[in-house]
Order: sequence, then C-alpha cells, then structure tokens
Amino acid sequence: MKVAFLGLGIMGRPMAVNLAKAGHEVVVWNRTSGKIVAGARVAGTPAEAAKNAEVVWLCVADTKAVEQVLFGADGVESALRAGMIIVDSSTIAPSASCKFAERVAAKGAQFVDAPVTGSKAGAESGQLVFIVGGPDQAVEKLQPLFAAMGKKVIHIGKTGLGESAKLGMNLMAAMMYEAFAEALTLIRKLGVPPEKWWELIQSAAVRSPLIDRKAPKVFQRDFTPSFPLYLMHKDVKLILQAAHESGAKLPALEKVEEVYQMTSKEQQGLDYSATIAVLEKLAGL
Amino acid sequence: MKVAFLGLGIMGRPMAVNLAKAGHEVVVWNRTSGKIVAGARVAGTPAEAAKNAEVVWLCVADTKAVEQVLFGADGVESALRAGMIIVDSSTIAPSASCKFAERVAAKGAQFVDAPVTGSKAGAESGQLVFIVGGPDQAVEKLQPLFAAMGKKVIHIGKTGLGESAKLGMNLMAAMMYEAFAEALTLIRKLGVPPEKWWELIQSAAVRSPLIDRKAPKVFQRDFTPSFPLYLMHKDVKLILQAAHESGAKLPALEKVEEVYQMTSKEQQGLDYSATIAVLEKLAGL
Repeated sequence: MKVAFLGLGIMGRPMAVNLAKAGHEVVVWNRTSGKIVAGARVAGTPAEAAKNAEVVWLCVADTKAVEQVLFGADGVESALRAGMIIVDSSTIAPSASCKFAERVAAKGAQFVDAPVTGSKAGAESGQLVFIVGGPDQAVEKLQPLFAAMGKKVIHIGKTGLGESAKLGMNLMAAMMYEAFAEALTLIRKLGVPPEKWWELIQSAAVRSPLIDRKAPKVFQRDFTPSFPLYLMHKDVKLILQAAHESGAKLPALEKVEEVYQMTSKEQQGLDYSATIAVLEKLAGL
Repeated sequence: MKVAFLGLGIMGRPMAVNLAKAGHEVVVWNRTSGKIVAGARVAGTPAEAAKNAEVVWLCVADTKAVEQVLFGADGVESALRAGMIIVDSSTIAPSASCKFAERVAAKGAQFVDAPVTGSKAGAESGQLVFIVGGPDQAVEKLQPLFAAMGKKVIHIGKTGLGESAKLGMNLMAAMMYEAFAEALTLIRKLGVPPEKWWELIQSAAVRSPLIDRKAPKVFQRDFTPSFPLYLMHKDVKLILQAAHESGAKLPALEKVEEVYQMTSKEQQGLDYSATIAVLEKLAGL
C-alpha cells in the first residue's frame, strides 16, 4: 500500500522501517529533518507526504503535534480525499481523536486511533500490540500494515476507544511503578537489604513483567530512557483529564502526578523510573 | 519436634495440619474453642500449649493479639525457657516484633518473625513462602518445620526484617490492585468494553499474577474473601505506621488508605478487591 509515515521518533522510525521492509511504498516526514528510512522517500511537509497516500500514519508526541501535522500549515488536511485512512499511533486525548475524526470525515477520509504497546524493542522487532479504535472496515483494510509492524491488533471499538484503553493501561503502568518505588523506599528505610526483598517479590503474586524490567535498572541507578519521564508525565495528565471529562475519580493517580511534578528538569529526559528519586529525597535517603 | 501452634485461623489451621502430618508433636490452641487438628492435642491456654514445646508458633490477627497470647493472662511467657524458639507468622508491626524479641530473650528464648505469602491455597498445599527475620542458628533449627509448611524460606536478616519485607510486599499488593481498580473504573466511564480492555492488559507488561487472580472475580462481582478487606486495611495502616516511624513518605498509599476508609462495614468482611465499589460510587457507576 501507499503509506505516508509522519513522525520518526523512538517508536515511529522503526515502525516506518518495518513498513518499508514489508514492501509498502512509504513516504516519510519528520518535524526535524535529517532522519531517513531505507527504501522510503522523504517529503518536505506532511501535505507533500500525504499527497498520493492511501494511508497516512502518525506517530508524534502529543495532542497538539497531531493537530499541527493534520490541520496546521502544510498539514495533511489539504491532501485529504475520500477513502483515505488517517491512523494515529500517538498517545493523545480520546476526546481529541474524536474531534479529529470528525474533521477528516468532512473530506470523506476516515480516522483510526491505534496507539501501541511494546516499547522501542517491540517497535524494532515488529512485535507491537496495536490498541485500535475506528470503523470495522477501515481497521480491516489496515491489517497488512498492522501485520508488518506488530504481533497483535486489539480492536477495542469505535474511534477514541483505542486511546481510552491505552490510557487505562498506562494508568496501571504509572501506579504499578509507583507501588514498587514506594515499597523499595520503605523497606530501605526499615533496613531490609533490597536484594533479599527483590528475591521475595520475584516469588510473590505482585511480580510483573513491568517491574521485572524496571527493577534491575533501578538497583543499578540506570535511568536510561526506555519510556521517558516527560512522556509518561504527559500521559498521566491526559489520564487525569479524561477522568475529569468523564466523571471518574482517581485518588491514588492524582498523588502519582504530584510526585511527577516534584521531579527536576534534568530528570524529565530520563526514564520514568527516575521518579523514585523524589521519594528517596522525601525519605532522606 | 515438639511444637505448640497458637491460632487456627484461615492460615494457621492448615499450617498446623501440615506440621502434624509431617510427624511433629503438635499441641494446638485457638482463642475460640472447637477447632481441632487431626493428630494434634488441644490445649486450654497458650501457656499450657507451650509447656513442653521446643518451638511455639503463632499465627494470629494482629500486634495486640500477639502481645496477648505471649504476655497476657495464661500467656506463653510463663512457659518460656532457655533454648525455646518463638516463631510469629502473624503480620504485625516490625517495631513490635523487636520489642517482643527483647522480652522473650530475657528468659533465654529466641524470637523469629516469619510472616508468609501464598494465601489460603498455599497454606493448605504446604506451598507457602516464609519471609523470615531472626538469628541464623534459630532459623536453621526451624528448617524441618518450614519444610513441612512451605516451599521456600527467604531469610531477610535480623528480627523484625521479615515483617518489614512483608509490609513492603503488601504495599505493592494494595497499590497494584488500586491501579487495576482505578483503571477499570476510568475505562468503563470512557465507554471501553471491559473484556476488550482485559484482553489488552493480558498482552501487556502490566500483567501480574495478582491481577490475573483478582480480575475475573471482579468482572463477576465475586468478592468472596481470599484476603479479607479488614486484614488488608490493617496491613495498610501498619505500613503507614512503619513509614511514619522510619521517616518514609508514601503519598499514593496514603490515598489508598483513604479509599479503604470509605468502605462500608459490610464490605470489611469481603475480599479487599471490593474496594473498587468506592471508586465506582465516586464515578457514579
């Protein structure tokens, strides 16, 4: 298929690489120039990239960036036509996805929200899980593209529900890491050797792949970003916004956001596991 | 070995059964009478049970109950003698364990804190994990007893550290379930079908045995107690007390405790997963 891929960040670039490898005609665009993808043509603007595309795939930082790429100067909007499918793998507000879907529908195009899980490693190995919201028939057409980049597609429901489900998952990730961070801080204050406690956690029902991945790096004070703090913080704020809009109350997550607010500017670029430093400081460690 | 087993509750009774099955000379006592264990003699008071015991094993509700059984009227204290080992599998304040250890040491006895994980099923099948604090040589002597009741012994360090490590683990359990409960409440408000979202969670790094066990029952509104809310609430308060004493700050767990405070009297006897009802009520579900 003819695919325009917009946004070549940590996730986007390997996704575009896998699309090109699978034989699709890929045109790429990135906000800052200089990024290339083997086998793909580089376009100067989102509009140029989208010009002859059947599918326009976005993977950018936030709601504002999606709006800019779609409807800003030289945005995709001018290239929209009937039958075109816009797919958004950015994690943004579900209410914004619905608004964008309406705007592209005015020109006969369809909008599918398809945020992912699987991290950088999953993007590189084509093992992502797509969390999808959108019309059945559009999602069906995208199957060869999903297959080139991922191992699983979960079609949650109509437009916006992919983002909604993703926010619920990231809520769990943020709070489960906070659980580990609060527990580790407490047991250290109580004099428990962390490596003995970790042996216990590994034998217990509270074990999880998320914590298994983060903990060894935390023990080594390695906060190299796998999921950067500023992006997780953005997601936590999106989740609280969605809760506010829908009338849900998330008392513990509100506190996690307060912990994130207490991180330093330098910590923003580190992995979100660096938020443990806030708890350590509060505890005088 | 000659073992007095004090406290025949959900966990204690099957533990005593496994000790007797393994051929140890077991004398049991329970606060309310009428509970029996095949192959074990029943004593009328803790002191009577402890009289000729080499090891006195406790599995009671809370710090106060441990103090009462050890040092109250007809308590173990009068039977204490040099070489006797007191083992406490109750989940209590680590600072209390240290205080009790000093008091029994005055009569030449040793104190080992050995809370467990593995729930009722683990107690029945002899598959518990013991989280142990106490002197090496006492813990060594207890190995045949641990082996009769559990599959693993993690000797964390000196007296009190078994309880400390257990509190850190239960902190994770309480907050991980809260993470699931807040996420499920949010996605329902956003219109996501829970079964589709659950499919996603099962494919994601936030998966954990704890949530795998709780979620299907929550979906069926089955809150039959596996770990009763009033006991988890007690543990959450112990954790906050230990944090206060040691100078740790646990901002998100404090909010979990507030959620627990909002449960009704009827909910106290249900599983702690019933706390999701508080979030549902706040969200108007």
